[in-house]
Amino acid sequence: MSGSAPRTRKHWGWGYLDEELSPAEVRETAALVADHLGFGSRDPSDPVPLAEIAISAPRVSPPSSLAAFSSADARSRITHSRGKSYTDIVSGFAGHFPHVTDFVVYPRDEEEIEAAFQWCASERVALIPYGGGSSVVGGVTPVLPPDYNGAVTLDMRNFNQVVEVDPTSRAAHIQAGALGPDLESQLASHNLTLRFYLQAFQFSTLGGWIATRAGGHFATQTTHIDDHVESIRAITPSGAWESRRLPASGAGVSPDRMLLGSEGTLGVITSAWVRLSERPKIRSSISVRFPSFAGGVGAVREIVQSGLRPANCRLIDPAETALTGTGDGSSALLVLGFESAHFDVASQQNAASSICQSHGGSVTVSGDARSGDVGAWRDAFIRAPYQRDVLVAMGIIAETFETAVTWDAFDRLHERVIAAAKTAVERVCGHPGSVSCRITHVYPDGCAPYFTVVAPGRLGEEAQQWAQIKQAVSQTLIDEGATITHHHAVGRDHRPWYDQQRPDVFAAALRGAKHAVDPGFVLNPGVLIDA
Amino acid sequence: MSGSAPRTRKHWGWGYLDEELSPAEVRETAALVADHLGFGSRDPSDPVPLAEIAISAPRVSPPSSLAAFSSADARSRITHSRGKSYTDIVSGFAGHFPHVTDFVVYPRDEEEIEAAFQWCASERVALIPYGGGSSVVGGVTPVLPPDYNGAVTLDMRNFNQVVEVDPTSRAAHIQAGALGPDLESQLASHNLTLRFYLQAFQFSTLGGWIATRAGGHFATQTTHIDDHVESIRAITPSGAWESRRLPASGAGVSPDRMLLGSEGTLGVITSAWVRLSERPKIRSSISVRFPSFAGGVGAVREIVQSGLRPANCRLIDPAETALTGTGDGSSALLVLGFESAHFDVASQQNAASSICQSHGGSVTVSGDARSGDVGAWRDAFIRAPYQRDVLVAMGIIAETFETAVTWDAFDRLHERVIAAAKTAVERVCGHPGSVSCRITHVYPDGCAPYFTVVAPGRLGEEAQQWAQIKQAVSQTLIDEGATITHHHAVGRDHRPWYDQQRPDVFAAALRGAKHAVDPGFVLNPGVLIDA
Repeated sequence: MSGSAPRTRKHWGWGYLDEELSPAEVRETAALVADHLGFGSRDPSDPVPLAEIAISAPRVSPPSSLAAFSSADARSRITHSRGKSYTDIVSGFAGHFPHVTDFVVYPRDEEEIEAAFQWCASERVALIPYGGGSSVVGGVTPVLPPDYNGAVTLDMRNFNQVVEVDPTSRAAHIQAGALGPDLESQLASHNLTLRFYLQAFQFSTLGGWIATRAGGHFATQTTHIDDHVESIRAITPSGAWESRRLPASGAGVSPDRMLLGSEGTLGVITSAWVRLSERPKIRSSISVRFPSFAGGVGAVREIVQSGLRPANCRLIDPAETALTGTGDGSSALLVLGFESAHFDVASQQNAASSICQSHGGSVTVSGDARSGDVGAWRDAFIRAPYQRDVLVAMGIIAETFETAVTWDAFDRLHERVIAAAKTAVERVCGHPGSVSCRITHVYPDGCAPYFTVVAPGRLGEEAQQWAQIKQAVSQTLIDEGATITHHHAVGRDHRPWYDQQRPDVFAAALRGAKHAVDPGFVLNPGVLIDA
Repeated sequence: MSGSAPRTRKHWGWGYLDEELSPAEVRETAALVADHLGFGSRDPSDPVPLAEIAISAPRVSPPSSLAAFSSADARSRITHSRGKSYTDIVSGFAGHFPHVTDFVVYPRDEEEIEAAFQWCASERVALIPYGGGSSVVGGVTPVLPPDYNGAVTLDMRNFNQVVEVDPTSRAAHIQAGALGPDLESQLASHNLTLRFYLQAFQFSTLGGWIATRAGGHFATQTTHIDDHVESIRAITPSGAWESRRLPASGAGVSPDRMLLGSEGTLGVITSAWVRLSERPKIRSSISVRFPSFAGGVGAVREIVQSGLRPANCRLIDPAETALTGTGDGSSALLVLGFESAHFDVASQQNAASSICQSHGGSVTVSGDARSGDVGAWRDAFIRAPYQRDVLVAMGIIAETFETAVTWDAFDRLHERVIAAAKTAVERVCGHPGSVSCRITHVYPDGCAPYFTVVAPGRLGEEAQQWAQIKQAVSQTLIDEGATITHHHAVGRDHRPWYDQQRPDVFAAALRGAKHAVDPGFVLNPGVLIDA
């Protein structure tokens, strides 16, 4: 642990307490937002203070074997019982915590993790692994199957060290509880970086990224944490599961690939060797306006299919440019950037520009990635989770969902998802709100579209309203052959659609693996599979 | 089935009967080889003819439910009972077939696969999936655990069609039994290609590649079939396991990644959607001579870590240049090529050249990939399996093994493996033979070295001699932290070292998955895991 006192996080929203806007600042922001959107209260509510939140009494208490590294106070219990989905935040704002973990363990070593497993198994208590707590799919919410006697959350914050750096192979052994800024600051002195940036970078951990197959913000190549993983160490109720460090292997089914995406059901990831790189020194960015979203889609498909691999390739539809202030809603915006630590990227940028122009795009060279359209987009990306807290206080429903689909199915999927979302918003909110789309990741055979819904909610009913919209759009994704998630994971929230998507026989195989490794079904019961 | 009669393959070695060299050609080749190597008989033996091979009587016979698509004749049984490792070929040459499958089924649809499962389960008979039969690790050899009543080999040759091509997403749905040339010829009319080339291209199938996580000949990026897989359909004893076509997904553990490398233990892969690309139009190749292998290693590491992604990057040590006639043994040879369907690759080639020169390399521009050093290497790559048959007839032990390791551990691994191989060859053969290494694949965090051993064997004892050498080098790989295979799979031959490499808890998970999907333990018992 570092010498300085850890900063305290908001109990209901994004960020640290010391970053919270003052009531005056909230009101000022709300006025701007309301002017821009045309809805939302200019007189935002206040969140229910932590001290006023009523939670159920703990069903179980820390036993002596765990007491030295446990906490059962209300703040610990409350802050560990929700992630950061819109539903979590609007419910947390309202002080609504129907499912609360009974106590939190903060293991300091692997033996303490094993002690937690043993006690939970003996008492039929569920154990929920917890990294940065930024799940947007109910990944940390202690909703229990009926026959459990309680829930314990296992917070990995003490596993936050870069253990070893191998400069020759450009890899590092990093403990799983390290948050994004923690691990990057420790790697900086080696002039190396993991370069895995996601919106939740500040409040998510390496172990969480691996457990959920998180996606970073790069549009091509190493889009998911999967590609960075050289080896994983996890503690399971049946012992340690540790693979060899290897650049590649063809020896049977990959052990790492079975932990990637296991969402805490097979073990608690304690560390991993991950592939690093040098910081890029050469960057080139352009922004391109297309008269239609379809023109931009054609361009980004041709770019990636031609073999170009932009670091950034975000295509924002007209509605989303209006929403985010990056345009007036009359055209689609493509933010396209190339990077390298060693080589000039001008020829790639020129080739991409030509492709954009052949699809009707109008190109602006940004040069510096922090100015102009590109800079505006980047700022919006980083600020988004903070801004949403204000929207919540204004009674505005604001949430995103994402998927991936092959190119042949994209146009139809896009059309039907937008239509389903608009119909649901109109029905549920009595207002058209805003439904928009951007493409965040591109692959030779498909892409990952990301949808944003913003609409006026009814005070106290927002969570149920969003649930109805989510139901409609999620079923559309599944019906159209897409995935329920490209990088947000399954958690508890996506289970109904994940169950339709994944092969039943595979689910049986995963259940068989789970029973072999976690015979007491202690770890995250109900996530991915049932007992 | 196509109208023309299928060509018949050699029962003991590589290739079709109609490609077999005449006795005079064999003798001519043998003389050249013996002159070059300084050992090996100039009067090659003849293989034991198929008709003279004594095999045990079948333990089981095709039941009426399978009879319409089964064969129990000696040729079918013999040719399906060995792969193409050196041990297989030298033993097959000598007519030694101690483990013979009882009959072969050639299912014409998935229902016939299911019928085979049912009968095998009811009779406690092992079922061994068979693609192109080119396993070099005992993947198709019917060595049975003690409590099985027989073995049936399931040959997928009737599943050889490209079912559908999606030109928009550049993907195709291809049946798993399609051999490399089959599927490429069907894709050619669409101006698309899988571009997955491996030495066994002619006699290996898409399903076999997926089941064994095969590696292609490209040195970077899509090195393994894994990266080409969009979705997989497999028939298991518990039903069909079919994933969605997706360019990427973060929805839980990847179902495809559990079938990739499952080596026929979880199901029989019947088809897959795979990612295609355009044929490259622009190619640039250079060859580089380095005074030492170490200089070349430094160069290829810098090339890949700088972000360059050559299609070909083979670094051949001095001994191997002498062996293959691509050099005189005084320097290491790097064959380096870049390719693109759209863009000039000159700047990449120039950057790589500069790196090579800074490591002491002397560069020759090849231009055309089919001339000079580059052409010589490529010819040798394609001819190698055919040539080995002559070596076998000359009494020469000739086999390869490969691995992957992180860069920090490479120098020591290389030194120890070469030393272990040389010591073993000297001890076992009483002759130094030739032990050499080339690097075939490079990754930012490591590489895949490929070792070749050629030595004079003692007639009738070659398989046992090789087994002793293999034991020594395999244990060295494991002791030094490498993988037992980068792309040759585990099969039955690598089990002792695979068991040391893979995490025990992972093995328990895989066993749990296997029991859930194949409760009768019908599929490939003993491969990867025991019951």
